Amino acid sequence: MIYPRVALIGLGLIASSMYWAMKRAGEAGHVTGYARSQETRDTARRIGLCDQVFDSLQETVRDADLVVLAVPVGAMGAVARDIAPHLKPGCTVTDVGSVKRQVIEDVGPHLPEGVHFVPAHPLAGTEHSGPESGFATLFDNRWCLLVPPEGSDADAVERLGRFWRALGSNIDVMDPDHHDLVLAVTSHCPHLIAYTMVGVADDLRRVTDSEVIKYSAAGFRDFTRIAASDPTMWRDVFLSNKDATLEILGRFTEELFALQRAIRTGDGEQLHAYFTRTRAIRRGILEAGQDTSAPDFGRVKVER
Amino acid sequence: MIYPRVALIGLGLIASSMYWAMKRAGEAGHVTGYARSQETRDTARRIGLCDQVFDSLQETVRDADLVVLAVPVGAMGAVARDIAPHLKPGCTVTDVGSVKRQVIEDVGPHLPEGVHFVPAHPLAGTEHSGPESGFATLFDNRWCLLVPPEGSDADAVERLGRFWRALGSNIDVMDPDHHDLVLAVTSHCPHLIAYTMVGVADDLRRVTDSEVIKYSAAGFRDFTRIAASDPTMWRDVFLSNKDATLEILGRFTEELFALQRAIRTGDGEQLHAYFTRTRAIRRGILEAGQDTSAPDFGRVKVER
Repeated sequence: MIYPRVALIGLGLIASSMYWAMKRAGEAGHVTGYARSQETRDTARRIGLCDQVFDSLQETVRDADLVVLAVPVGAMGAVARDIAPHLKPGCTVTDVGSVKRQVIEDVGPHLPEGVHFVPAHPLAGTEHSGPESGFATLFDNRWCLLVPPEGSDADAVERLGRFWRALGSNIDVMDPDHHDLVLAVTSHCPHLIAYTMVGVADDLRRVTDSEVIKYSAAGFRDFTRIAASDPTMWRDVFLSNKDATLEILGRFTEELFALQRAIRTGDGEQLHAYFTRTRAIRRGILEAGQDTSAPDFGRVKVER
Repeated sequence: MIYPRVALIGLGLIASSMYWAMKRAGEAGHVTGYARSQETRDTARRIGLCDQVFDSLQETVRDADLVVLAVPVGAMGAVARDIAPHLKPGCTVTDVGSVKRQVIEDVGPHLPEGVHFVPAHPLAGTEHSGPESGFATLFDNRWCLLVPPEGSDADAVERLGRFWRALGSNIDVMDPDHHDLVLAVTSHCPHLIAYTMVGVADDLRRVTDSEVIKYSAAGFRDFTRIAASDPTMWRDVFLSNKDATLEILGRFTEELFALQRAIRTGDGEQLHAYFTRTRAIRRGILEAGQDTSAPDFGRVKVER
């Protein structure tokens, strides 16, 4: 058992998937859980999520060898402050937030000497949220980025890496600022853009809602899937990864204006060259094994 | 048999899917096919796509009761001009383009008296292209929009509607300008935006290509899928639906700037309200049966 006792704080998609993945791996020694809302705790108890669900943070983290902060990024600091006095000496605290610099600044100062803080970010998820949305295979063959602050205990980092590998993930170690920039490109900005496009569609009075929905084949439908993700989680992501997000959005707008201009001036060559270039990235993703080449757009290819 | 003889011009994803769907429906009386490139014609012959693949447009459309233009929007006019003298009197010419006003202007004037022109747009596709990408179920439960110009023959429109229903589609009739606006919102702008974001990622030197690809979980990966679509087809879409695309892009930019400002000023309430609103649209799409609620992001939910 890599960690005999694990405490999960926040029982949403990620924490619940971690629990089922721990079970599958034989790594669920004793797992305690806590969620802020009574309703979530009741649901967790009903579906057997965690060996014990507590009504207080204090009881949840007591004796835990690993404490996982799986709450929205904006709530991490307050949780760290509240659990700090009750942590077992020598235990590891980790998180699963999509932003790392801010979390390190918010959480780090609260933790007592002798407790290891190893931030992490499993790059996995779906558009669903809540304790019932989790499943054991969520992390399989996905990356989990470990983002230890300078001076972290090497053994604690190595142990957390083993834990995530047991849950199905591949492991990489990354610097916090670089992490936040990479994620701004691959996740945060795409989400903001999807939210925006769906909002535009909703606003247009001449294109009625029902039409937008009815005729939402390829393209827009994928955006609505992204834009259906948890609002609180995403609000916190944008507020706490402000600099990188704004930088990438600036680049995006610049590029979009250039394409807009190509459309306005009828520059077909520029458009064609651009679209050809982006195709190559897709091929790279398929080769990296991070998606399948099965055509999607709501259709599974079947035999003719 | 709704149309005893059908001619498919252009043998890509849509035309090849139409062929397999006709076969499935028992509606493939005699189907001829033509593609501009020798390679595509050879592939079609090898995989048994169409009863006969011809090397000339003239032979392909001879005696056809229905001629389907399934080439990029920018090529429709030239094809119409070339086939016009060889069309059977009383036949129907249709197309499958994503833009309708421009196609009507390009194709209509070439067609002789006594030939019915009924533009159509099946709202279905995948990110793959070419003769081997088609499959019989592509149109099942998708919408096919019929966009007849004013003064179209009602019987010809009704007959084409029956044909598309036989291929699995639901049918709606729409005005060309309204069609082009609705599609700008639901398809054309989302594609341009996805292309742009993928291009930005590709440009960033500090975020190496391999990182962008490696860590492309949720969000960006869906964009790359969209941005992998056929470059020629999409170039033509943007050039021929210029006005509606630019109008919607203008609205999009305005909205994006507002969210950018909310991030910069730390206005969490505005972000949360916006993200909550876009969630509702997703629910509408699920209720309209145009997608499933199975979580995606590269993961199929399985039993715990």
